[in-house]
Amino acid sequence: MKESLEQHKKYRGKIEVITKVPLETKKDLSLYYTPGVAQPCKEIHKTPLSVYDYTSKGHLVAVVSDGSAVLGLGNIGASAAIPVMEGKCVLFKKFGNVDAFPICIDSQDPDTIVNTVKLIAPVFGGINLEDISAPRCFEVENQLKEILDIPVFHDDQHGTAIVVAAGILNSLKIIKKNMQDLKVSISGVGAAGSAVTKMLLNLGVGDIILCDRKGIISKDRTDLNPAKKEIAETTNKNNATGTLKDAMCGADVFVGVSAPGIVTEDMVSSMNKDAIVFAMANPVPEIMPDIAKKAGAKIVGTGRSDYPNQINNVLAFPAVFRGALDAHATEINEEMKVAAAYALAGCIPDAELREDYVIPDPLDKTILGVVSEAVKNAARDSGVVREEGH
Amino acid sequence: MKESLEQHKKYRGKIEVITKVPLETKKDLSLYYTPGVAQPCKEIHKTPLSVYDYTSKGHLVAVVSDGSAVLGLGNIGASAAIPVMEGKCVLFKKFGNVDAFPICIDSQDPDTIVNTVKLIAPVFGGINLEDISAPRCFEVENQLKEILDIPVFHDDQHGTAIVVAAGILNSLKIIKKNMQDLKVSISGVGAAGSAVTKMLLNLGVGDIILCDRKGIISKDRTDLNPAKKEIAETTNKNNATGTLKDAMCGADVFVGVSAPGIVTEDMVSSMNKDAIVFAMANPVPEIMPDIAKKAGAKIVGTGRSDYPNQINNVLAFPAVFRGALDAHATEINEEMKVAAAYALAGCIPDAELREDYVIPDPLDKTILGVVSEAVKNAARDSGVVREEGH
Repeated sequence: MKESLEQHKKYRGKIEVITKVPLETKKDLSLYYTPGVAQPCKEIHKTPLSVYDYTSKGHLVAVVSDGSAVLGLGNIGASAAIPVMEGKCVLFKKFGNVDAFPICIDSQDPDTIVNTVKLIAPVFGGINLEDISAPRCFEVENQLKEILDIPVFHDDQHGTAIVVAAGILNSLKIIKKNMQDLKVSISGVGAAGSAVTKMLLNLGVGDIILCDRKGIISKDRTDLNPAKKEIAETTNKNNATGTLKDAMCGADVFVGVSAPGIVTEDMVSSMNKDAIVFAMANPVPEIMPDIAKKAGAKIVGTGRSDYPNQINNVLAFPAVFRGALDAHATEINEEMKVAAAYALAGCIPDAELREDYVIPDPLDKTILGVVSEAVKNAARDSGVVREEGH
Repeated sequence: MKESLEQHKKYRGKIEVITKVPLETKKDLSLYYTPGVAQPCKEIHKTPLSVYDYTSKGHLVAVVSDGSAVLGLGNIGASAAIPVMEGKCVLFKKFGNVDAFPICIDSQDPDTIVNTVKLIAPVFGGINLEDISAPRCFEVENQLKEILDIPVFHDDQHGTAIVVAAGILNSLKIIKKNMQDLKVSISGVGAAGSAVTKMLLNLGVGDIILCDRKGIISKDRTDLNPAKKEIAETTNKNNATGTLKDAMCGADVFVGVSAPGIVTEDMVSSMNKDAIVFAMANPVPEIMPDIAKKAGAKIVGTGRSDYPNQINNVLAFPAVFRGALDAHATEINEEMKVAAAYALAGCIPDAELREDYVIPDPLDKTILGVVSEAVKNAARDSGVVREEGH
C-alpha cells in the first residue's frame, strides 16, 4: 500500500473547489461579485428559503468527523482523519453527483461537535457524520437531527444498515425464507450493529440476538450503557444468555461488525440450514469467506473488494443524499432508508441473483438513479419535504 | 441587476467540489478509499506536518464570515452572506488558483467565531476573514492569529490596504512627491481605515488624520473605542481637531472608506496641489470621480468598475494567499503585505503610468505571478515559514 501513499502525495489531497460560473470579463465580475451579488444576498435576507435558489446549499453536504473511530485505526484525531473524509467527499461526487466538503472537528466532546456543526450549517444542505465512535455518535446524531432542518445521516450506522438489509433481502429470494422466520445473530453493538438491528426490525425480522465482547445482550446484563439497554428491550425475545457461540447456534443469519477472526468454522456449522454470513470486520473479517463456505454457509459477504458480495457503504450514501437533496427533504427518515434498501436490492434482477452475487457492484452505474428515485419518493410519501418552490 | 439574480438562480450557487483523483476501477477505490487510505492517515498520525503532503490542506482556504457587515448591506446574517462568500471563493480559484470554501458562522459573538474557526481549522491551510464588522473583526483576527499556525488575513482590512498603498505608490511616481512629506486624510475608521493607516505608516507616510462620523480622531476625544484610541496614538501628529472638512484642507491624499457623497467639491479644492482622491464607498463613492477631477484632484480612484483606477481587493487577496501557501508561511505579516503593495504597484511599468492608470486592471494576468512571488520571498526573508520538507 505504498502506492496509496505515493498517490496521495502526488495529488496533495483529493478534492478541488472550482467555479461553476464564467469569470472572464468585468461584466462577469459585476454579476457574480460586486455589485450584482448584493441582489441574491438581499433576496435571501428577505426570503430565507431562497438560499436554496441562489447558493450551493441545496447540493452541498458536510462530511463531519472528530477522528475518534477512523476505519480500523481507532482514535487518530481530526487531522489524521482528513484523507478518509476527503475520500468520502470524492465518492459523494463520483457516485452521487453531490458536492461534499470535509469538516474535521478538533474536539471529541459531543456537545462541542453538535454546536460546531450547528454554527457552520448555513452553507450546507446536509450533514454526513463519519467515523465518530459509539455511543457518542448516537448523541451527536440525535441532537443534530433535533436542531437542524436539513438531513443528518451517520453513514457508519445507516449506510451499513441499508447495504446489509439489501443483501439479506436478495439472499432470502435465493434461500426462500421469510423475514418473519429469521433468527439473526449480530456481533458488535456499536454504530453499525445498532443501526443494522433497527433496520432489520423495521423489515420484520423475527428475532435478533446481539453480542458485544462480553457476550449476548440480554435484559439480565447489569453492565450495559443506555444505548445497549435500549437494544436489550427490542431484541433477544427469549432473553437468551451466553456467548457469541450460543447466539450463532441455530441462527439463519450472522452479521459481523466487530473484530477479526472471532468466528470459528464450528460456529458457522452450528447455524441453521442455508445460513447467511456477512462478516464485515475490515480488513480481516470475523471469518474468512472460504472457511465460512466450507463450514456450510450458503451465502457469504464481507467488506473486502477481493471476495464476492462486498458490503460497501458507497452503495448507499451517495444515492441516499442525492435522493434526499432532490426531494428537498428536511431529514432522512426510516421510510427513506428502508426504501433505499429495497431499491438497492432490486438493482440485481432476480434472474441474475446468485449465491455470490446478492450485493450489486459498487461501480454499477444504475444504482444512483434507482436508489435516489426511491429515496426521493419515500421522502415525499412520508411528508418530510420543504415547502414547494424551494 | 435582475440579471445577477437570474444567473445565481440558473447556476444554484457558484462553487463545485470535484475530485482530483481517478475513481474508475476497484483498484482506484482501494487506493483512494479503503483500505489504501489508511496509509496516509497513519502517516499523519505519526508525523503531523505530513498533513500538507497527503491532504488538500496546503491549498485550501476558508472564507469565514458572520454576515455582520456584508458589502454595503450591513448586518444581514450568515445565510444571506453566502452569495458573497461563494463569490470570494470563485475569485480565489480564478485569480489565485487557491481552493476556497465558504464558512458562514451563525453567531456574531467574537469568542464563538474564534472558537468555531479553531475547531474546524484542521482541514484548512489558511483563513480569510470577510465582512465581519469593526471593532469585533480586530478581536477575531488577533485571537485567531494567536491560536492558529496557519495564515489568517482579514481581507476587508489588509486587502484594501495593499491595493490603496499600491495606488499611492504609483501616484507618487507621477506627481513626484515623497511618502515622508505626505499629509493623508482618511474618512472611515473601521476595518479598512485602520488597516490603510497602519500600512501607510509602515510605508513612511509623514502624517495621517482620520475622521469618523463625529470628526477628527484626536487624543482629546473622550468617546473613542480602544481600536480608535490606539489609532489616535500613532496618527494626527499635531493633535488637530475638527471635521472632515478641516482634515482635508491642505491634504495631499484623501482616502474614503466611509459613506456616499460626504465629500464636497470645495473640500477637494481645499486639498494640496496634485491631490490624490481615492473615494471607495460602494456603490456610491464619497465624491463622484468627475466632480473630484473638476475640483482639481490630479488622480482619482473608486471602488467602481465603470471608472478608471478601480480599487478592488481581488487585486490582492488571491495572490497574497497563493504566495503565503507556496512559501509554507505560518502567517501573513506586515513585511508580506508591504511586499504585495510594492509588487502590485510594479505591475504597471513606469512608462505606462497615467493619472487614470495607477491601479492595474483586475483581469491583468501578470498580477498573480508577480505579487505571489513577492509575498513568498517576503515570507521567507522574514522567517515565517514551516520547517523544510513540508
